[in-house]
Amino acid sequence: MKKYLDFAVKMAKKAGKIMKKYFKEDNKASYKNDNTIVTMADKEINNLLIKYVKKYFPGHAVDGEEEKFGKSNYVWVCDPVDGTAMYARHIPVAVFSLALVKEGQPIVAVVYDPWLDNLYSAVKGQGAFLNGQKLSVSNLTTNDMRTVGHYDMWKNSEYNINPVVEKLQQGCYVVSIGSVIRASMCVASGDFAFVIFPGTVGKNCDIAAAKLIVEEAGGRVTDLFGNKQRYDQSIRGALLTNGVVHDEILKIIAQSR
Amino acid sequence: MKKYLDFAVKMAKKAGKIMKKYFKEDNKASYKNDNTIVTMADKEINNLLIKYVKKYFPGHAVDGEEEKFGKSNYVWVCDPVDGTAMYARHIPVAVFSLALVKEGQPIVAVVYDPWLDNLYSAVKGQGAFLNGQKLSVSNLTTNDMRTVGHYDMWKNSEYNINPVVEKLQQGCYVVSIGSVIRASMCVASGDFAFVIFPGTVGKNCDIAAAKLIVEEAGGRVTDLFGNKQRYDQSIRGALLTNGVVHDEILKIIAQSR
Repeated sequence: MKKYLDFAVKMAKKAGKIMKKYFKEDNKASYKNDNTIVTMADKEINNLLIKYVKKYFPGHAVDGEEEKFGKSNYVWVCDPVDGTAMYARHIPVAVFSLALVKEGQPIVAVVYDPWLDNLYSAVKGQGAFLNGQKLSVSNLTTNDMRTVGHYDMWKNSEYNINPVVEKLQQGCYVVSIGSVIRASMCVASGDFAFVIFPGTVGKNCDIAAAKLIVEEAGGRVTDLFGNKQRYDQSIRGALLTNGVVHDEILKIIAQSR
Repeated sequence: MKKYLDFAVKMAKKAGKIMKKYFKEDNKASYKNDNTIVTMADKEINNLLIKYVKKYFPGHAVDGEEEKFGKSNYVWVCDPVDGTAMYARHIPVAVFSLALVKEGQPIVAVVYDPWLDNLYSAVKGQGAFLNGQKLSVSNLTTNDMRTVGHYDMWKNSEYNINPVVEKLQQGCYVVSIGSVIRASMCVASGDFAFVIFPGTVGKNCDIAAAKLIVEEAGGRVTDLFGNKQRYDQSIRGALLTNGVVHDEILKIIAQSR
């Protein structure tokens, strides 16, 4: 696993440099057919990943948000810039996300926040780390003034979770910071208690790296209906939590449908 | 006005240093009676402001989120750390906010983002600036994939704007980044089209600096019902927009009640 992790970390640092390069200047934001935003950074990072995977792991495939390559049991699932809408608006919460997915499950994951130089990483069965320090989820509940959770809702989402958010707001503080993966890292570090991701048609597997890091930090990850799922194909949303609040939120989701 | 602006800028830079000091280490977050969070940075900045106002403008009052001082037609309205909940969770979106309010209206305003070293400022009638560059609002509409807006909703909010958010989500991307003032600066810079602030009992006048900066950037600011209001007393929420979307959102708010 070490060679995969080292590769992912190397890619993350390269991606961070590219993200910073276009952050203050014109990042040439444009819009794709599904109305999602793309910038120079997204494209450049995605291309770089394909180039390096071809070079170092020629048998592997790449499933990048902007471009895919190859077919294999080993897939590098990447969101070059998660939170592009914020990135393009000069808010420093976007992150780079990369997971090596083997037969549908992430086995190595890296998320990089270039603004704080924070590198989150995990290898299946070996714990999750932030810049080398072990990460642990919180034990906060949904009815606690100290609890923060994140959701991400927009018109292309597959599931409407607004009723779920309204219910949770009665007990805690629910935000929508603009990057579901950055928010998931807050679950892993214990800063947030949950993240609810209602999915976006055709770009569901972004969550692969976050899944492994949150789980390795002691949290729990399922689809919105409590099921395990594969991360090399479309998913049915995702719920990433500290474990404590998981069943309760699943119940609220079920009741809200 | 220059001496007031110079003073506000000086305070902002001092505040930024304090915010950075406690950001990565334990910021000793605690909770007030109204369930809002407070950190070492909030208290230290608020105390410093009172000390400096006493020294340089002994006839003026201070209305800080953590502590108030004096009574005057000239009030320094300050949110030492707007977005404390995010600040305490190591997300770099919190800002320092300070306005000189004369007879209820802000005449000088400064907002400082220490993470990007971005200083937003305005003097009544003289335009709004980011690090010396003139700011202008966007002309984006609510039904545009490029449009982003912000809202802030939690259990202590005075007005429930969830139905308004649900309606707006049909046409554009609505986030809740955790700092209403940072989001308002995005309205001033053209990055966001609107900010909806439903208010929180007893800490309404935070919005004073944002009001002047957004207006001086060409935007429009009212309470949630379309009225002008004073910023030295409780307010009825706030709507800060690029102007283009203002009447439409007021109408949605009115229809949602």
